Amino acid sequence: MTHALRVFSLAVGDELLDGRVADANTRDLGDALAQLGLELCGARTVPDARSAIVAALRAAVDEADVVVTSGGLGPTSDDITGECVAEAAGVGLRFDAEAFARIGMMFAARAIPMPESNRRQALLPSSAQTLHNDQGTAPGFVTPFASARGASEVWSFPGVPREYRHLLEERLVPRLRARLAQGAPSVMVRRTLRSLGLSESAVGERLGALEREHPDVRVQYRAAFPEILVRVIVTGADRDAATARADELALRARSDIGGSVYGAGDEPLEERALRALEQRGATLAVAESCTGGLVAKRLTDVPGSSAVVQGGVVAYANQVKTAALGVPTTMLDEHGAVSEAVARAMAEGARARLGATWALSTTGIAGPSGGSADKPVGLVWFGVAGPGGTAAHQKRLPDFGRERIREMASAWALRFLLEAVERT
Amino acid sequence: MTHALRVFSLAVGDELLDGRVADANTRDLGDALAQLGLELCGARTVPDARSAIVAALRAAVDEADVVVTSGGLGPTSDDITGECVAEAAGVGLRFDAEAFARIGMMFAARAIPMPESNRRQALLPSSAQTLHNDQGTAPGFVTPFASARGASEVWSFPGVPREYRHLLEERLVPRLRARLAQGAPSVMVRRTLRSLGLSESAVGERLGALEREHPDVRVQYRAAFPEILVRVIVTGADRDAATARADELALRARSDIGGSVYGAGDEPLEERALRALEQRGATLAVAESCTGGLVAKRLTDVPGSSAVVQGGVVAYANQVKTAALGVPTTMLDEHGAVSEAVARAMAEGARARLGATWALSTTGIAGPSGGSADKPVGLVWFGVAGPGGTAAHQKRLPDFGRERIREMASAWALRFLLEAVERT
Repeated sequence: MTHALRVFSLAVGDELLDGRVADANTRDLGDALAQLGLELCGARTVPDARSAIVAALRAAVDEADVVVTSGGLGPTSDDITGECVAEAAGVGLRFDAEAFARIGMMFAARAIPMPESNRRQALLPSSAQTLHNDQGTAPGFVTPFASARGASEVWSFPGVPREYRHLLEERLVPRLRARLAQGAPSVMVRRTLRSLGLSESAVGERLGALEREHPDVRVQYRAAFPEILVRVIVTGADRDAATARADELALRARSDIGGSVYGAGDEPLEERALRALEQRGATLAVAESCTGGLVAKRLTDVPGSSAVVQGGVVAYANQVKTAALGVPTTMLDEHGAVSEAVARAMAEGARARLGATWALSTTGIAGPSGGSADKPVGLVWFGVAGPGGTAAHQKRLPDFGRERIREMASAWALRFLLEAVERT
Repeated sequence: MTHALRVFSLAVGDELLDGRVADANTRDLGDALAQLGLELCGARTVPDARSAIVAALRAAVDEADVVVTSGGLGPTSDDITGECVAEAAGVGLRFDAEAFARIGMMFAARAIPMPESNRRQALLPSSAQTLHNDQGTAPGFVTPFASARGASEVWSFPGVPREYRHLLEERLVPRLRARLAQGAPSVMVRRTLRSLGLSESAVGERLGALEREHPDVRVQYRAAFPEILVRVIVTGADRDAATARADELALRARSDIGGSVYGAGDEPLEERALRALEQRGATLAVAESCTGGLVAKRLTDVPGSSAVVQGGVVAYANQVKTAALGVPTTMLDEHGAVSEAVARAMAEGARARLGATWALSTTGIAGPSGGSADKPVGLVWFGVAGPGGTAAHQKRLPDFGRERIREMASAWALRFLLEAVERT
């Protein structure tokens, strides 16, 4: 390539400008580009207004080789991205019969009559290539533009994050990778480390020496809150050599980062914990106070989790801790609900009453209220009860707000469980 | 009618373009403007690069009366928003001694020595008015610009969301309110309807006639899966007239859409249900099978929910339905876990055992496996037990996949609860 590939994000939608939604698609696009060693050159958000969309498209194609629009592909009257791309490209609209047939099949598969208005979703710029979307009704499309940069491409994706990510990962990323591969080293070997408990900057500091000593190796950091994912990427001509080096550097990175690394690979914490249990023919019960169902929700999000997860108790009120988990009221009075004793009793009660091999408990202060000097917001006790007995752990999580405290607590709970199960 | 005040959001920072962070400040700005009946005319994100920031500033002031920048006010070398605003405005920099003194006091208060680099934070465009920031070290500032619109203002806030919101609410909002009071820009009145059970396109079709009969009224659709939010937006010179018309059209829209509308306003389903319970001094317990903790998680995401939510049981395995909720094994054998009888028994068991005024249950088939001809994936039974007895509801949710079925089921569960409580 004569110049670095420039990519621009153009988000379309009133809901992004009137306070209803924050634009997460631009972040996901930037993240996908980072995996390729690219970066967005800029981003723009425009309302559902033809003149604004067309003007932004014309400016964007002069600024970037690849412009990715999100939103405005739906069936309703305020979805006009397709028309605007056609106008900006100076072409008409074509009716894509195959895309329309796929929309029809989607509705048929769900036994829902298709509203006539969905026909609009099959009207695409006449010069555009259709990107079929298995995740929703709106197809995406790529439209070539003549631009100040010579030629640019406008990729139009639906605004629904799941559908956006689907087309981003399935269609755009492979295309960009191919474009970058021209003349690039033949193999790229990636190793991922998963860290929980250190900030991104702290992890980065610990890998500073490794990065300096190996300037040709790319180290990527991704904050998948509350986890930090570190990717060591080795490129080279020979696969075996690159693989060996990636493995060696991953080991080095693991020891440089230290104890916050709990695992490797791209498998999420909940799936890894479920797999560890399933491999041992074990079952699980959860007893949640401060996480309020989040741990159970994360576990049961995984298809097939019912083979392992017996169930759980969300014991918010003390009376429920006693009635459903058998935590003695005297213990609650003596130690308080947020205590090691209660965390242990909750886990043991869940394990016994729900008849599971393992049980996991959380009790803490998620805030915003309820904290005190000796039991501040963010203090969480965890219990892990198993065939070999019960362990308790304490964490003082930083007060990043209720939602984040609950996310951190659920991640630590799953990590404590995973480590206990893997030791058996 | 003078033009409505145009406001533009300019976010500065590499971290917004490389996948690390999603820009929440633009959303918060749009939200604050919505309270004033205003809307962002656009938003732009640029990297920490002088030429990009200066060019974006110059374009923005020609587009908007008020441009709000976020980020780039920190002490490090890549924080250059102040210099760029000065360059774009064609002025120099001044050292603000008072701002510098406040920065020093901040460090003193935390007993931390102040790095020399923080001095940079007190260098502001010479024509700018300082906006002291009680939430952090970086002061904000407001800089006047000559622009294609005559005169524009650039408000520069720190990127840290808490500091951004602080200056937004304490400084910008009052200024805008004052400007709106004297000038006579058009007022904008919004009404939101919340619909559950129809696709976005089906809702749009039902409002087609209203849209055609009132071409000057904006109707916005937003899919907040599984809900469809419809906004009717009336613009006019007179607030009372616009309000009356918005109310009238919202009523019309409600009857055109029909039974899928369950409420109005921007309050999420879980918050509304909790409020309805709290107003009646009632408490809640949940018993979840197919939603696996998602209903409890959604409810306990809300701060203060512990005043209402006693807790819940995630009864995934039949043995847990029996042990923790007292569902008779004979009933499970006879009717199966996914049945009206079991949904009722789960709700009644949770209500009795967890000692709550109300209890809510879900039992269904989230898939991908476990479906059958008479009990297909997507079939869900709901139970709502309250002081006046127990009701059961059945839904055959479209098979959009496990995760979405669980999201739909949790929304229907909360809707059934809300409607039952509101009837009391």
